[in-house]
Amino acid sequence: MPKVADKYLVVDPWKVAEEGFDPARNRVSESIFSLGNEYMGVRGYPEEGYGGDTLLGSYFNGLFEESKVDAHYKGIIKSLRFMVNAVDWLYTRITIEGETLDLAASRFSDYRRELDFRSGVYTRELVWHLNSGKSVKLSFQRFVSMTVSHLGCQRIAFEPLNFSGTAEVRTGLDFSVVHEDQGRSYWGTLKRQEAGGAAAILAQTVNTKNRLFSAFRVEAPVQISSRLVESDRFIGRDVVLYLEQGKRTTIDKLAVNYAEKDSGIDHETVWRTGLELTERYAGLGYDEAAEQQREYWSRVWKDSDIAIEGDPENQQGIRFCIFQMYQTYHGDNPGFNIGAKGLTGEAYRGLAFWDTESYCLPFYIFNNPKAAKSLLEFRYKSLPYALRRAKELDCEGAFYPIATIDGTESCDLWQHSNLQLHVGTAVAYGIRHYVNITGDTAFLYEKGLEMLIQISRFYATRGQFGQKTGEYGYFGVMGPDEFQLMVNNNCYINLMAKKMFEYTLEVIGQMRAEEAGAFVKLAGRLGLTEEEQADWKHKAESMKIPRDAETGVYEEHDGFFDMPHLNIHDIPVTDFPLYSHWSYDRLYRYDMIKQPDVLMFMFLYSGQFTLEEKRANYDYYEPRCIHESSLSPSIHSIIASEIGRPEEAYKFFEFATRLDLDNYNRNTREGLHTTSIAAAWMNIVYGFGGMRSDGEKLVFGPTIPERWEKYSFPITFHGSKLRVEVNKDYVHFRTESGEPVDMIVYGQDYRVGAEGIKIALERVKVG
Amino acid sequence: MPKVADKYLVVDPWKVAEEGFDPARNRVSESIFSLGNEYMGVRGYPEEGYGGDTLLGSYFNGLFEESKVDAHYKGIIKSLRFMVNAVDWLYTRITIEGETLDLAASRFSDYRRELDFRSGVYTRELVWHLNSGKSVKLSFQRFVSMTVSHLGCQRIAFEPLNFSGTAEVRTGLDFSVVHEDQGRSYWGTLKRQEAGGAAAILAQTVNTKNRLFSAFRVEAPVQISSRLVESDRFIGRDVVLYLEQGKRTTIDKLAVNYAEKDSGIDHETVWRTGLELTERYAGLGYDEAAEQQREYWSRVWKDSDIAIEGDPENQQGIRFCIFQMYQTYHGDNPGFNIGAKGLTGEAYRGLAFWDTESYCLPFYIFNNPKAAKSLLEFRYKSLPYALRRAKELDCEGAFYPIATIDGTESCDLWQHSNLQLHVGTAVAYGIRHYVNITGDTAFLYEKGLEMLIQISRFYATRGQFGQKTGEYGYFGVMGPDEFQLMVNNNCYINLMAKKMFEYTLEVIGQMRAEEAGAFVKLAGRLGLTEEEQADWKHKAESMKIPRDAETGVYEEHDGFFDMPHLNIHDIPVTDFPLYSHWSYDRLYRYDMIKQPDVLMFMFLYSGQFTLEEKRANYDYYEPRCIHESSLSPSIHSIIASEIGRPEEAYKFFEFATRLDLDNYNRNTREGLHTTSIAAAWMNIVYGFGGMRSDGEKLVFGPTIPERWEKYSFPITFHGSKLRVEVNKDYVHFRTESGEPVDMIVYGQDYRVGAEGIKIALERVKVG
Repeated sequence: MPKVADKYLVVDPWKVAEEGFDPARNRVSESIFSLGNEYMGVRGYPEEGYGGDTLLGSYFNGLFEESKVDAHYKGIIKSLRFMVNAVDWLYTRITIEGETLDLAASRFSDYRRELDFRSGVYTRELVWHLNSGKSVKLSFQRFVSMTVSHLGCQRIAFEPLNFSGTAEVRTGLDFSVVHEDQGRSYWGTLKRQEAGGAAAILAQTVNTKNRLFSAFRVEAPVQISSRLVESDRFIGRDVVLYLEQGKRTTIDKLAVNYAEKDSGIDHETVWRTGLELTERYAGLGYDEAAEQQREYWSRVWKDSDIAIEGDPENQQGIRFCIFQMYQTYHGDNPGFNIGAKGLTGEAYRGLAFWDTESYCLPFYIFNNPKAAKSLLEFRYKSLPYALRRAKELDCEGAFYPIATIDGTESCDLWQHSNLQLHVGTAVAYGIRHYVNITGDTAFLYEKGLEMLIQISRFYATRGQFGQKTGEYGYFGVMGPDEFQLMVNNNCYINLMAKKMFEYTLEVIGQMRAEEAGAFVKLAGRLGLTEEEQADWKHKAESMKIPRDAETGVYEEHDGFFDMPHLNIHDIPVTDFPLYSHWSYDRLYRYDMIKQPDVLMFMFLYSGQFTLEEKRANYDYYEPRCIHESSLSPSIHSIIASEIGRPEEAYKFFEFATRLDLDNYNRNTREGLHTTSIAAAWMNIVYGFGGMRSDGEKLVFGPTIPERWEKYSFPITFHGSKLRVEVNKDYVHFRTESGEPVDMIVYGQDYRVGAEGIKIALERVKVG
Repeated sequence: MPKVADKYLVVDPWKVAEEGFDPARNRVSESIFSLGNEYMGVRGYPEEGYGGDTLLGSYFNGLFEESKVDAHYKGIIKSLRFMVNAVDWLYTRITIEGETLDLAASRFSDYRRELDFRSGVYTRELVWHLNSGKSVKLSFQRFVSMTVSHLGCQRIAFEPLNFSGTAEVRTGLDFSVVHEDQGRSYWGTLKRQEAGGAAAILAQTVNTKNRLFSAFRVEAPVQISSRLVESDRFIGRDVVLYLEQGKRTTIDKLAVNYAEKDSGIDHETVWRTGLELTERYAGLGYDEAAEQQREYWSRVWKDSDIAIEGDPENQQGIRFCIFQMYQTYHGDNPGFNIGAKGLTGEAYRGLAFWDTESYCLPFYIFNNPKAAKSLLEFRYKSLPYALRRAKELDCEGAFYPIATIDGTESCDLWQHSNLQLHVGTAVAYGIRHYVNITGDTAFLYEKGLEMLIQISRFYATRGQFGQKTGEYGYFGVMGPDEFQLMVNNNCYINLMAKKMFEYTLEVIGQMRAEEAGAFVKLAGRLGLTEEEQADWKHKAESMKIPRDAETGVYEEHDGFFDMPHLNIHDIPVTDFPLYSHWSYDRLYRYDMIKQPDVLMFMFLYSGQFTLEEKRANYDYYEPRCIHESSLSPSIHSIIASEIGRPEEAYKFFEFATRLDLDNYNRNTREGLHTTSIAAAWMNIVYGFGGMRSDGEKLVFGPTIPERWEKYSFPITFHGSKLRVEVNKDYVHFRTESGEPVDMIVYGQDYRVGAEGIKIALERVKVG
């Protein structure tokens, strides 16, 4: 893993700050200073217009466009849907004495930007030196409201240092934004009007007819004049401000955005709804909204903060991660999903992968169960698409997409979209995990089981029996390890499918016993038969789980042990990323793996494997893994911790919390690694905290990295709030609210209540 | 194989004829009545303009356009090259009394068309009934000259049945032809002029700047007037003819076409060269050219005819095949290749596959060694591309493209272009085959060995050693059987590579001994080392050839025997072709195979395998093969013959010679199955004739199908002309010219001279 930190930002426990302006790093910073409130997101781009390298990105969760794909064969997607770049509601142009501010052309000094995790506000400051010798101090602030999803707030402050005079500010809503990846704009204006003190515009996307309403109001105390400006895809105001030397003059803009994907609703209704929303928040000023924002974040930190003593960089890093997790999703808007880059860039096209269930869901389950449930509901809502997709692949039941924005498959590489089966089992695992930790059987019976049954149907029709072995398994698949392209009996898929069948049958039995009436109705509606269940049982029992009996190493797939060996340390550093430097087919011909596959299921079903098995498999697979996925190191770190390799665990952890802050992968410019940010949380809680949550009781085996003094994290379990605090000597568990929690620590049973329990730290014997 | 004949054409030993006009079948007939002379080809479209369904196709061998491919990864092609539809040099419009002939709109009777294998002329006749009640008999004749590659000839004859009057004929050269697959025309005019009694036009393709010069002269004895007509991409003449009742009036058009792909030559030179060619053939009239054409074909039939008694349909069929083989290629223009559809349609984009070496080459080796050599020279000429392509795939040596028009890879499906390795071994096999049968060691030492060395280098760098077995082989490949998409150690590829290494080393030894000086030069130029040769030897010796020792069945690839079984007879007929009706990934999950793979190498290296082995492998693979390639049945037929299954052999042969005439695959409308036409020849000579040519001596084991009385075919071997005649009782070998030929018949050695030998037919014992 040749990953080197690019240390650049100021280290601070509650902020990310950048001092000075480096145009070459601007896109990286734009990603880091992204804001979002799950409903919408904006990159930290200079809203005043910038002639240099920038990605002006403004995104709305689930708002998408599509382009046609020239598909050769059945079952390969024909339309590719992606999160579309949308209205620049921050649009601003500032002109003083005929000069227009542009950081690529203007002279300026004292540049600084910061993002405050406690206020949720992004601030930029600079002193602009005009050609005339006049100087003005500028401050740009913005936030997207966590309490009012539709609301975006902007404040620009002017302080002339050596003159008094006027400033012309054009501020507005711009739909002529370009979607960079496709090199075009996707918006057409439907309506544009001044209404009730606000300027409003309604536009729709070219192909998908998604609509977006946007309106704004301006507040500026010492305004000389103000007039409406309109052009094809723009509505705004030209405001002239009077600036007094040494005095701070502000102009505030409050924008209300409202996205409507339902094409059944007519334009007029969308327009009216938008205006109603605008009206509703008309009385809300910038300061009041900012105060609500601060209160919201203060609750978040009370509930979800991870405190680390003795490691300021990782302290900043993990808070940045938690901040981003809440920005990306917190469950106020049900039925959204989480794109691989959240709402921070066009890369991965805004699509959600199995990362949601495998990496993000744990964070929400233990911090914000409402959000966790809502993420699962995205899968329920999109079940009809998954049913249709299974049919396209000549199968039954539900086949969940490998990459999606709206529930349809949007991966145009058939080798991924058709061969990767691990989303369905991830959804099933997510349901099980969520229900086990929250006890939410209502969701399980209302929606969960229906998904489980349809997922089971898929895995029962996609699999086949080996002609020689007579065992059941999946042929022609790609596992989580994407460096083995089309294999038979991928051990991860087989094992996860086996567990999924078993869990489905278990839930069927449970619901039949607990809610017989509802079960009969459900079974009737889905046409569930006894034969079908017997078939699933048979297939689960016949499932091939390839394993070398002598060494205890699971074979990643049929024939993996004979794959030509490659010493991955012999690969020149300049060959990375391999996807760019190696011939595509060459990637797939070694025992080299891209990311954990066998180790992944050993983590997910940790309780099923002995420490010795984990050691044997870690020792076999770790040296073969090149971590060409940002999600990979955390899983390795977690298992290394468990098997008593603290140095390795720390080495793999090292960049987890600061992957983006230090731009380890050199591609943060494209957007944040949102789902790997979630893995950073897992790395601390599951890794150092040694938590396991795949059994009935929570399990802990805490350790502490050598350089840390102390760390603590909260956990929500069956409604109880549990605080875990680890220092050099002991771990301290206590509930902050709710019932006592039963748990296993270092193999011993405990019941933890408000009074708390202190247990001396143990070290795993090194194997 | 649910293939049903669509019997439609008149059966005749020397002609294909169609009576009456069926618009629904017009495209099929256009393919069947295609003309070609290896330099250019025209489909049998109605040149007078047709408002119905037609594919106006005019092609020039190797003339191509390209379109960009959105490639995601390294080693996947970025530009797709294809044979482009070119000038309609037959362009004609006929107007009488204001009515313009169009078979989609006009009234006509007595329609008949025929293609005569002895004259090479395609004739259409009809009686056109004008609205006025007047009728005129029309005859359209055309041929493309086999003796002057640039020359296309057209004659239209008018015979008014009940009136005398005038006919207006517009005749010209039209570059506004549309390439149907891409929905656009690719031509831009560079120059257009009347010169020396001819009208000439020079145009070039939009992207590739390939140029095509076209000029024509008109001869019409009773011409009233004639004037030049020009438009953007057209030059022509409007001719008014006087027609006398009951008298035949003809108008002849002789077109000279000249294609120039070398962009280093300036437009003026191309224009001048075109005019010189036009000048050179200015004295040649239609009748004289037609006479030369007839003489050419009479030589072909003398040299290459297969005569069958007792089976008029297959007699017609095999002659159609031989006619097409010569039309597609006969070696007068060196360095061309053979597209899967020859010059008869846009399907497969005019690209050449391994079919050239595997299916077409034997026909030429035994009938027209000059053409065979020239086909191999295409591979020599394109060696630089193959060297570059290997580098793109991170390998050394030469990697020949799976689909090409100019030597570059033009398959945009990476799973084929990057995983199919069997072109290189096919080229090596072709060299060996050609040299063994012709004795042309000059070619071998001048060009053959260089190719062999570069091919060996590729196979020595693309292969790997299995970690467990320690054996050498190819990982991540697709064999000839394209229903196993990405497998390890495909037995065909491994075996062919092993043989290829051995042959290369053998030729090196032989040339070192026979032409030491030239060898040292070659080895020096190529940097050939002893270590390299030792490496090839080691890899050949370590090659994994998976085989079940008990049954003697070769395993198509690692794990094939465990692939889920499918009874192919359970597949509903409506599911075919599977590519259109099955989800793409589903095709690859069974023990179902698309075409021979193990059986293919058993045919190619027939002498290396016992009859028992062939039986065991045929019995295993034949029931698993769905023949979704038109090349598949012939190989099965040949092996069925050998192992004593005459009924099966005939069943698989049945549609070989008439695949297109009876439109068995229902896609002849797209063009002829040129390479399967070559397989039809192989089916008779190798199948019923029982010839094997993979050893030092020719081997024969003739049989005769039950319904045949007698058949005979000629063979050229080391310059000797050998005639083989088989009837119900015996086989008769004799040389028609050249030295006596040593051969093995039914396991016995013979020397056959001009006096001939008769041997009683034997029957293979049914296993």
